Amino acid sequence: MNFHYPNGKKFKASTSPIKKKTNTKQVSYSNRGMTLEEDLNETNKYYLTHGIAVIHKKPTPVQIVDVHYPQRSAAVIKEAYFKQPSTTDYNGVYQGKYIDFEAKETRNKTSFPLQNFHKHQIQHMKEVYEQKGIVFVILRFSATEEFYYLPFSSLLNFWERMITGGRKSITKSEVEQNGYNIPIGLNPRIDYLKIVHHIIFESQK
Amino acid sequence: MNFHYPNGKKFKASTSPIKKKTNTKQVSYSNRGMTLEEDLNETNKYYLTHGIAVIHKKPTPVQIVDVHYPQRSAAVIKEAYFKQPSTTDYNGVYQGKYIDFEAKETRNKTSFPLQNFHKHQIQHMKEVYEQKGIVFVILRFSATEEFYYLPFSSLLNFWERMITGGRKSITKSEVEQNGYNIPIGLNPRIDYLKIVHHIIFESQK
Repeated sequence: MNFHYPNGKKFKASTSPIKKKTNTKQVSYSNRGMTLEEDLNETNKYYLTHGIAVIHKKPTPVQIVDVHYPQRSAAVIKEAYFKQPSTTDYNGVYQGKYIDFEAKETRNKTSFPLQNFHKHQIQHMKEVYEQKGIVFVILRFSATEEFYYLPFSSLLNFWERMITGGRKSITKSEVEQNGYNIPIGLNPRIDYLKIVHHIIFESQK
Repeated sequence: MNFHYPNGKKFKASTSPIKKKTNTKQVSYSNRGMTLEEDLNETNKYYLTHGIAVIHKKPTPVQIVDVHYPQRSAAVIKEAYFKQPSTTDYNGVYQGKYIDFEAKETRNKTSFPLQNFHKHQIQHMKEVYEQKGIVFVILRFSATEEFYYLPFSSLLNFWERMITGGRKSITKSEVEQNGYNIPIGLNPRIDYLKIVHHIIFESQK
């Protein structure tokens, strides 16, 4: 079964030691059976264990309404709702610098729909950008299994084009021109920090 | 009603537009009736709206086990458990730099118990420290309504003293000597970034 957050994002129950559920549809791609989120978690784990960066996915925000306290066992949340996240999903530190990003995917082959992003996320990324954080989005074209790093400054241009009446998506060739292709690797799987490193240190030479 | 996370941290249900509950005991202090978390949220809101920094509290990590989908209304989480957080509670960006901290309080007057911190949090802060992030703890002595900024490097010394058989707390005078008093203000309430700014920019002069 598949359901959605208020923001239209798919929810995937993480496997639990408490109780295993198998009713979660895994959006598998390529031959690897990994979701975008799993790929990024693996990538971040690689960065962490190799001392390259400390980047984590934030927990899913939940509005807790009712909690029970069985004797001698853990508190059980009996009623809760998904909340709209007020920030992006991923943030952390790379060589002292603040890193912040959101990862989204599409099955479209020729463009990336801007409806994947939400106003509050754009607002958050703008705030981070003004605070000189490294902020970007990772776009996945699932049909061709391609990943792109798009700096927030470019995303904002396309976003503003949309809100002033322009097209509601970024064409594939605009993504190619304004973004950076992230080659898929074995480990790390999606080495986005290579792009970050290039942008911070090498493009200033 | 008051309950605790697996990590011993108090849980406070946030007020919800969905359903209001008043059974959450508010730990009020001073004459202001504000909790440490509320004070920090207000402080971070001040920083955000004034363009000073982008710092957010991370959502409470929850292990979702069962979700119901009533027709024409929001998905309801029917069974979930509190998870041990793998990081600190607060992080964000200040002038491009990564900020990461945890806030804790004690009713003790003469020392701050180290059991307030957990191994995985110390581990996370160590990783951030090695990645050159600005990492610290905010300690509140509730009896005297005093706030201190203690750099992680100092906390680590006291932590290591404990695990090598030494005392299980930091004495008040050690906090005073190794930390920085944060004066309480009206707005922002707990201006910890003043200390951050001093440490980053002024102490290097």
